[in-house]
Formats: sequence, C-alpha cells, structure tokens
Amino acid sequence: MREVRVKASRDYSVYISSGGEGFSFLLDTNKIKKIFVVTDEKVKGAQEKFLKVIEDRCLGISVIKPGEDSKSLETVTSIYDKLISCNADRKTAVVAFGGGVVGDIAGFAASTYMRGLPLVQVPTTLMAQCDSSIGGKNGVNFGGIKNIIGQFYQPVFVYSDVNFLKTLDRRDFLSGMAEIIKYGFVCDSNLFHFLEENKTGIKEREMDRLLHIVNETSKIKALIVEEDELDTGMRQVLNFGHTIGHGIEAMAGFKILHGEAVSLGMVAESLIALENQLISEREYERLVRLLEYFELPIAMSGVDVEQLIHLISHDKKKTSNNLKFALPDKLGHAIITSEIKQNMIRESIDGIIRR
Amino acid sequence: MREVRVKASRDYSVYISSGGEGFSFLLDTNKIKKIFVVTDEKVKGAQEKFLKVIEDRCLGISVIKPGEDSKSLETVTSIYDKLISCNADRKTAVVAFGGGVVGDIAGFAASTYMRGLPLVQVPTTLMAQCDSSIGGKNGVNFGGIKNIIGQFYQPVFVYSDVNFLKTLDRRDFLSGMAEIIKYGFVCDSNLFHFLEENKTGIKEREMDRLLHIVNETSKIKALIVEEDELDTGMRQVLNFGHTIGHGIEAMAGFKILHGEAVSLGMVAESLIALENQLISEREYERLVRLLEYFELPIAMSGVDVEQLIHLISHDKKKTSNNLKFALPDKLGHAIITSEIKQNMIRESIDGIIRR
Repeated sequence: MREVRVKASRDYSVYISSGGEGFSFLLDTNKIKKIFVVTDEKVKGAQEKFLKVIEDRCLGISVIKPGEDSKSLETVTSIYDKLISCNADRKTAVVAFGGGVVGDIAGFAASTYMRGLPLVQVPTTLMAQCDSSIGGKNGVNFGGIKNIIGQFYQPVFVYSDVNFLKTLDRRDFLSGMAEIIKYGFVCDSNLFHFLEENKTGIKEREMDRLLHIVNETSKIKALIVEEDELDTGMRQVLNFGHTIGHGIEAMAGFKILHGEAVSLGMVAESLIALENQLISEREYERLVRLLEYFELPIAMSGVDVEQLIHLISHDKKKTSNNLKFALPDKLGHAIITSEIKQNMIRESIDGIIRR
Repeated sequence: MREVRVKASRDYSVYISSGGEGFSFLLDTNKIKKIFVVTDEKVKGAQEKFLKVIEDRCLGISVIKPGEDSKSLETVTSIYDKLISCNADRKTAVVAFGGGVVGDIAGFAASTYMRGLPLVQVPTTLMAQCDSSIGGKNGVNFGGIKNIIGQFYQPVFVYSDVNFLKTLDRRDFLSGMAEIIKYGFVCDSNLFHFLEENKTGIKEREMDRLLHIVNETSKIKALIVEEDELDTGMRQVLNFGHTIGHGIEAMAGFKILHGEAVSLGMVAESLIALENQLISEREYERLVRLLEYFELPIAMSGVDVEQLIHLISHDKKKTSNNLKFALPDKLGHAIITSEIKQNMIRESIDGIIRR
C-alpha cells in the first residue's frame, strides 16, 4: 500500500492499494467504530466483497442513482433522513464509496450534518481516485448550475484501490483518462510522457500502470492542495478544460460524462492557448492525439454557440465580469488569465464543432 | 469602538460599537465591495438607517420571517435563488443583519454557496451579540431536530452595535439576558456579580451597562472558541441549560423564545447540579432570583414529561447512549458529564413544572 500525504487545514493521507488490503486496519487506526455508507447502484453490485469487510460497523447505507442528476439537494435530504433514522452521531463516519458524484454528495452531507461528521473517501473510478476524492471539495447542483452549492471539507483519509478500476465500464474508465491527461498536460510533463509511452498498457488496465498514474496524480493533487486549499490561486490550474467543459456539461443536460466534457473543453481551451501563442502547434497536436487514443471526444455536433457562451458565463468560477481560464503555456505548466475576449472564446468553440 | 480578537482556524475581530460608527470603514479594510444582506421583517423596519450606510454596495437583500420556523432548508434555498439572481460571486460578502435565527441561516447559506462566501455578522439582539454571532456555528432545523444541519464557518468580522438593543422588543431583550446570566453562572463569577449589582441599569438598557456585558461575554466566548473551536470539549460548558432547553423548545414547537427555554433548562439542570451536590442551595437560589428579576420563566405548565425526555434524547449533542450535560460545579465554572441517570433528569423536569 502506497501513501501520499496531503497537508491541508487538516492533514490526512491517501492510501493507494491494489487488492483491498488494510481498510479495516485504517478504520481502526482512526478510531472509526461506526460508519454510514453512501454509494450508487452501479457500485453496489460490483463491490459486494468490499461492503462485507465493513458490514459489522455499518449503521446504514444510502444508495443513490448513478449520474449527475443525483447531485441535488433532494438527494442530500434523503441522506439526512437516513442518518437520522439510523441514529448516526458525531462519531459516525460517512464513507463515500463510488465515483465523483458519490464523493461530492456524500462529502456535502457529511460536512453539513451535525456540523460535520468524519468523512472517508473510497473512490472507485479513475476520475475520483486521481482527482476529486483529494482536496476536500464537494458540490451540489442547484438552479441548473453545477456545484454552485458546496464546501471545502477534508476527509479523514482517502482509500484508492486500483482494483476497482478493473470492473469499471469502459466508457467511465476512458472518461477518467481525461483528468489524467489534464494533469500531465498542465502540471507534469513527465506524467504526460509516461501516458504517451504506456498508453497501450494503460488502456488494457495493467495493474502496475494504474498504480503509477493514480500515485503520480495523487502526489500532484496533494501538492496543489497544500499550496492552495481554498482554490484562490494555483489550484485553479486544474480548471484547465473545465471553464468551457462545465458549459458543455450543462448544455448537454449532464448527459455527457464529466471527462468527455473536459476533453472537449481542453481542446477548445488549448485552441485559445495556441491562438495566444502560449503553446506550439505540436503541443496542441500531442494533446489531441492522446485524447483520441483514449477515445475521448475532440469535436461535437449540435452545439448552440450562444447558449454555450451564456452557460459558460454563469459558471461559478466567474469572479468578475471576465471569465477566468487556466491555459497551458508549455507542456506541464499553466497560467491563469481573465484576459480572454469573448470573441476568442467563440472562435475556440467553433473549433470543436463537428461539421 | 472596542475590539475583541477571536483566534480560530481563521482569526477575526468582534467590534463593539454604540452608535453605528466605523462599519463602512471595516468593509473597506476587509476589501468588501459587494454585499448581500440577510435580515428579517422585524429588523428591516427598525434599522433603515443602518441599511442606508451599505446601500451602495448592496447587490440584494433576503428578508426572512422572524422566528425559529425560518431555520429551514426552504429558507436556505430561497437565499440561494436570490444569490443566483443578483449574480453574487465568491467575493460577495453575506451580511447577517439580525438575531440568532438570521445569523444561523445566513451563516449556513454563506458557508455553502460557491464553497463559501465571506460572512459578516451584524447581530442586533442581545443573544446574538453576546453569544451566537461569535464562534462560527450555524444551524438549520431538519426533521424536527434543532440545528441538526449546520457547519462551523467563521465570519470575516462581527459588528455588534449596542444601540440596536435599545429598540428591541422587551421580551426579546429579556430573553437574551438568559444567555448573559448563563455566561456569568458557568464561566465568570465577576460577570455574575456585575449582573446582580447592576440589574436595574441593565433592565433600563443603560448604554454603558450594555457595552460592558456585550464586551465581557464577547471576551469569554472568544477565549472558549480559541480553546475549542469545534465544540469537542470546553465549549460544551456553554450548553448549560441547553440540553433540557432544546427539548423544551422542540416541545413548544419553537413558539417559546430561545432564551426563555434556556432559562427553564438552566433551572432544571441546576437542580441536577444541586442534587449531585455540585452547587449549594444558595448558588441555586441566586441563579433563580436573577432569572426572575429579568422576568424569565422558571417554571412552566402543560409539560408532557415523557415527550420531553424523548425530545431531549434526540438532541444532536448526544454522542452516545448517555446524554451529555454541562453542569455548574461552583459559581463561574462548569463540568461536562454524561453520568446523569434518566431518573434524575425526570426529577429535575418535575422541578420546573408549575402546579
């Protein structure tokens, strides 16, 4: 089991395992005697073995519907109801057992119930293991706006078992690769090289390759969270692909997977970076080629450009009249800017429309 | 203007003023250019002058109904709706302008919108100035349980103007005195003496007396928050009167004022302390006499003892099968115990039933 330490307002560890070992031990170490599990229908079937391990401590379980639609206040109140009915108290840990949606909604419920229950993240998707389970962000959609409600609330620990990735739907797995590619492209050129050189093994989900990428991205995320827990500066580089990507997600009524929207967002935002001569044509091409290899979308049809522009402007990351973008300025690095004219955003969207 | 410093996960100050001075200056110092006000119908009429001062920075205002019934998730979502419609962003500060209910609900909305907006507490009631506006606790009632949903979320600053207390309803003012008396009885014997010696002046709301008690209670609260921000130890002494008091509030369907319920709770819990020989008969009498002087209830009729016991057991402060009590063990000091038998709780409730 590998360990990555996260130094935040509350320090904690990410444990990366490949065979379900050590989870009970970690609960014991953290004096967690009672737990409440939030999971989704998908996970429930596949991971019965894991749930068996924690059975004796489990006060109750909340099974939510998979997908972004579940990130609603209605889901949150249904979890509150269950927490009340199973007599959860301040020492009951909420275990978020699933992907990003489960982590977001369970994290929010845990952070707001009884002024905060201990939270344990057990991410089962690539996206959640490499990104969303680390750093304490949670989120609920409201009024059609993604993650407009939410908190920063750090977990007690994160337990990432790459074995879970073996049984993921192919589309979910590939969607998660978008976030990994993002980490490589704007944070770590060594990781980007590794992805290029090991793409076949990764696509076949070879255990050692998976361990490596979860470990490397966890380390990057931990460093970024340490620098900027509250997302006011450096952490914003991770928004690469997300400013336009969130707009695409909202436009598609959340029917597109998060990673797929981020893939399209990265292509569009790289076009802005290219247009501003921040990156070279060759760097842009390498990004697009890697996304294509992992069967991620690089163009889409049926886009209403004006509606998309409107949705992007209402993204919660907006802090002034100008939109903020995280743009790569070389392989493995990015800058934050709010100097991008609407005209250029429109052109970049034009660049991802399939004709 | 007096200043009390609060050292918490985020340091901040409580400013105690007596004529509305300096508020604009404090907003400037904290670089707050845009604000969103949450207030209630009561406050709105009385404090038009104050709202004028902040008019030019104000993006929007949410006026909630006075009273505990407003502490619902419905009120929270109505605030989210307004925040969205007036384009509030992460730099927009939420100003909680009102009593404890406003502070709780505005604090929760601020802490959960866009992962946290800056929060400014402007308490207008005695209870809020002396207690609830300091320390970052917020709360929403759910499933019939008081404050079961909530957060710890510290404000940027607190601005207590004792001038607001002049126009308070008499009943609201007296209700607030319950919390002040609590501070004296379990935290600071000097304050208790001051209350006994200056009760006439306080009841007539003489400015210097009000300034003194708000200043002293703010200092006590700041010290306690510094020691125990997350309410896992010492801060629990402030729950004196609240274990039974919350039950009484829930039983009365929140029709009784918080301070009135706390007054009854303090009498009952002092009876437990007396029965356990923690305090003397004379100390118990001094507490009751002071509560009576401020026209606070010390007995009530129409109590269903079993229902009350049930409601007390479902109070969120319960962390195990045993209820936790903060009990005075001498004037100006308290201990925490979970060793109180149900039998004794029943007897203490019996002691506050009017026959």
